Amino acid sequence: MTEPDGGRPSIAKPTPISGFPELLPAERLAEQQILEQLRTVFELHGFAPIETRAAEPLDQLLRKGEIDKEVYLLRRLHAADGEDADSSALGLHFDLTVPFARYVLENAGRLEFPFRRYQIQKVWRGERPQEGRYREFTQADIDVVARDLLPFHHDVEVARVMAEALSALPVPKLTLQVNNRKLIEGFYLSIGISDTTAVMRAIDKIDKVPVEVMRSMLTDEVGVSAEQAALCIAFASIATPDAGKLGFAISELVPETQWDPLLGEGAAELQAVVAGCAGLNADRVTVVADLRIARGLDYYTGTVFETRLAGFESIGSICSGGRYDSLASDGRTSYPGVGISLGVTRMLIPLFARKKLGASRSVPSAVLIALPDEQHRADCYSVAQRLRARGVPCEVAPSPQKYGKQIRFADRRGIPFVWFPAGASSEDGEPAPDTVRDLRTGEQLAADPDSWLPPAEDLRPQVIRPEQ
Amino acid sequence: MTEPDGGRPSIAKPTPISGFPELLPAERLAEQQILEQLRTVFELHGFAPIETRAAEPLDQLLRKGEIDKEVYLLRRLHAADGEDADSSALGLHFDLTVPFARYVLENAGRLEFPFRRYQIQKVWRGERPQEGRYREFTQADIDVVARDLLPFHHDVEVARVMAEALSALPVPKLTLQVNNRKLIEGFYLSIGISDTTAVMRAIDKIDKVPVEVMRSMLTDEVGVSAEQAALCIAFASIATPDAGKLGFAISELVPETQWDPLLGEGAAELQAVVAGCAGLNADRVTVVADLRIARGLDYYTGTVFETRLAGFESIGSICSGGRYDSLASDGRTSYPGVGISLGVTRMLIPLFARKKLGASRSVPSAVLIALPDEQHRADCYSVAQRLRARGVPCEVAPSPQKYGKQIRFADRRGIPFVWFPAGASSEDGEPAPDTVRDLRTGEQLAADPDSWLPPAEDLRPQVIRPEQ
Repeated sequence: MTEPDGGRPSIAKPTPISGFPELLPAERLAEQQILEQLRTVFELHGFAPIETRAAEPLDQLLRKGEIDKEVYLLRRLHAADGEDADSSALGLHFDLTVPFARYVLENAGRLEFPFRRYQIQKVWRGERPQEGRYREFTQADIDVVARDLLPFHHDVEVARVMAEALSALPVPKLTLQVNNRKLIEGFYLSIGISDTTAVMRAIDKIDKVPVEVMRSMLTDEVGVSAEQAALCIAFASIATPDAGKLGFAISELVPETQWDPLLGEGAAELQAVVAGCAGLNADRVTVVADLRIARGLDYYTGTVFETRLAGFESIGSICSGGRYDSLASDGRTSYPGVGISLGVTRMLIPLFARKKLGASRSVPSAVLIALPDEQHRADCYSVAQRLRARGVPCEVAPSPQKYGKQIRFADRRGIPFVWFPAGASSEDGEPAPDTVRDLRTGEQLAADPDSWLPPAEDLRPQVIRPEQ
Repeated sequence: MTEPDGGRPSIAKPTPISGFPELLPAERLAEQQILEQLRTVFELHGFAPIETRAAEPLDQLLRKGEIDKEVYLLRRLHAADGEDADSSALGLHFDLTVPFARYVLENAGRLEFPFRRYQIQKVWRGERPQEGRYREFTQADIDVVARDLLPFHHDVEVARVMAEALSALPVPKLTLQVNNRKLIEGFYLSIGISDTTAVMRAIDKIDKVPVEVMRSMLTDEVGVSAEQAALCIAFASIATPDAGKLGFAISELVPETQWDPLLGEGAAELQAVVAGCAGLNADRVTVVADLRIARGLDYYTGTVFETRLAGFESIGSICSGGRYDSLASDGRTSYPGVGISLGVTRMLIPLFARKKLGASRSVPSAVLIALPDEQHRADCYSVAQRLRARGVPCEVAPSPQKYGKQIRFADRRGIPFVWFPAGASSEDGEPAPDTVRDLRTGEQLAADPDSWLPPAEDLRPQVIRPEQ
């Protein structure tokens, strides 16, 4: 119930708060299994779990002058005057990267590098209300961070681990889009553009505006030539799952002899990431080199990732990240990192809403033990405990209603089996065995609580895709 | 890494924030296994998981005029003037009971009652800084809530489920103390005290003051007679694991013929809860009727629980709760509940601090695949994937250092096995098999990545009790 003096009676019918989604039990059972699948893959690859506190000092959250960040400030209800002054003010974290960088610096002496971690937690954004955007949501991040130098092969590693994790999920097909900042910058330099950042920011909108608007943004606003603009747009239109074709496609735009060294370096890295994901379950996750991906204003320095969910492209990227050569630094030592972050809530809520995802039942129980009468409650508990001892989740009916009602009780919750203790059917004095009925088939068989097991797939609620 | 534009480079060495504890990876690995053990027991008993949003409307958090609540208010950094006015202000939940009551009311039409739920989440208290109290901590709650009427046997159920869950944990011995508000009130009424609440509040301090102070508090402040005060103190001193002796012990103070009906009812309920927990692992958890437990100002209406951790009594109760006949009500329908809340952080942090709890390693990896040289990286990945395919967490060494260094790399992380691919030892041209070394014994044996398995207990980091 509650620890120190919580809990209170009688509150009027409440309504949801916009941007703070909540799940019904069956949905939460599905989400929990999906989180468990993610954890399992991350741990198989040696990623260690951490959790960071929800709050960070506001000045850390707003570093780099990004005062447009949508942050929730915390203030103690009974704060003393001046207590929450600017310097000590706390805000809720809006991602898991800022807290992770801080955690690495704070614990650098107690961590072993390269440090692989995963982190599955809620984050908060102080978005304006009524905008239909999430203000609280769950992210699942993996990152590898090193001291001073992080070998490139970790870029391949995080892509592969996340792609492997995603490929195991009961969700629509996914496309992991990979690009490389060095490649982009090298290309721009190769065609004589020096303000590469301005072009990158413009090209980042390529999916949102018609091509002629894009062209005039580049020529009129950024100030490149019409020919350069055409090349940038052609470059950003290259997308291929065949990493081997990348060099050829780019050389069609700029002869390899004119390549800036960064272009070659970026192309090699991008090819390595895409090639490194070969052999995955391609029916579930496609990994493509997609040269339009730039990750906007982020401070990535090499590999960048985004991910699209088939049929749900309008929700944008559900899994993004990249290489970050200065994830954290304390002035003397720098900690480069590479990572990728899955927007769990962003991916799952639309699937639940469109009935593309659910659970086979709303309770963990695989079995309801029917209760013949209150005198048999202890016997029913004993049956339940013997089933649980062998890992079968079950519950005893709350009251000795007619069996028809008890069966409907199980049915409404999606519990597949009802157990009838011997005492139930032995009213004529005949010793009768316990029986168990499969509500889906109606089949009812004798069963021993010390040996009966449901089919393995019925032990836990199954994650289902109702309209698949 | 980060979803929309997070992450920033270069921050100065940060320091912890008082009251916001964080764990190192090995500690988090231990905590995570403990949370998994709790979840497993809760689900075996049919409790369904839910999560509620972190924020609730402030007026709900402060209901019942308890303006002394230590709440964290939320405010959007870029809030428009007047936007976060009182009526719409949000605060972080300080327990899981208030949000659960709200969730039940909000979703009553979509839940099946009686509704068993468990909820494992962070909660926040806006305590004054520098007080050494937690401002962010994890709780694990189980509750059963019904519509209109909740049979008493659910009181026994939640006690038993939590006791069973606690008994499986790798923590010091626990004592679950049970009492009953009806019993307390009935006793006071039976000895002629009418202001039972005032006495209960005073007696709640019995552990904190000497008996003579207690006595004068009762006579001078509450205004009962010296004889009544003596009886109240004697009553509160009764504690027994033998529920059968309870009636006799009380009748020594007040003859059964003078018992108020509430006293008999409460005594019967208390006996039933204690007796219902019989058969548990008594070496780990002792369940006692302890008549001093009252749960202070809480609105419990029957059964009440507290829990002490042996050797850590000074931290107070780590697991508390009780019966709450009006957990929630929308005016027409009321939802009685009974539940119990484990303070996970409150229990674990002192154990970590005193080295009573830890994990056998700081990474999930059971095996480090040694890397002979960069040319063999693909072979090493292949070994790793074949081990993972059979559920063995592993990682490939980040760089081809000398084997001695790679072994120390594994050793520092507590990884028990190092795998040497065949390529490594075949420098003389002789075909050699892969070998695997147990770093604890030094034994090194030939092994096949498609069949080798570590001992089952090495698959995952083990939760250990270092100074046991």
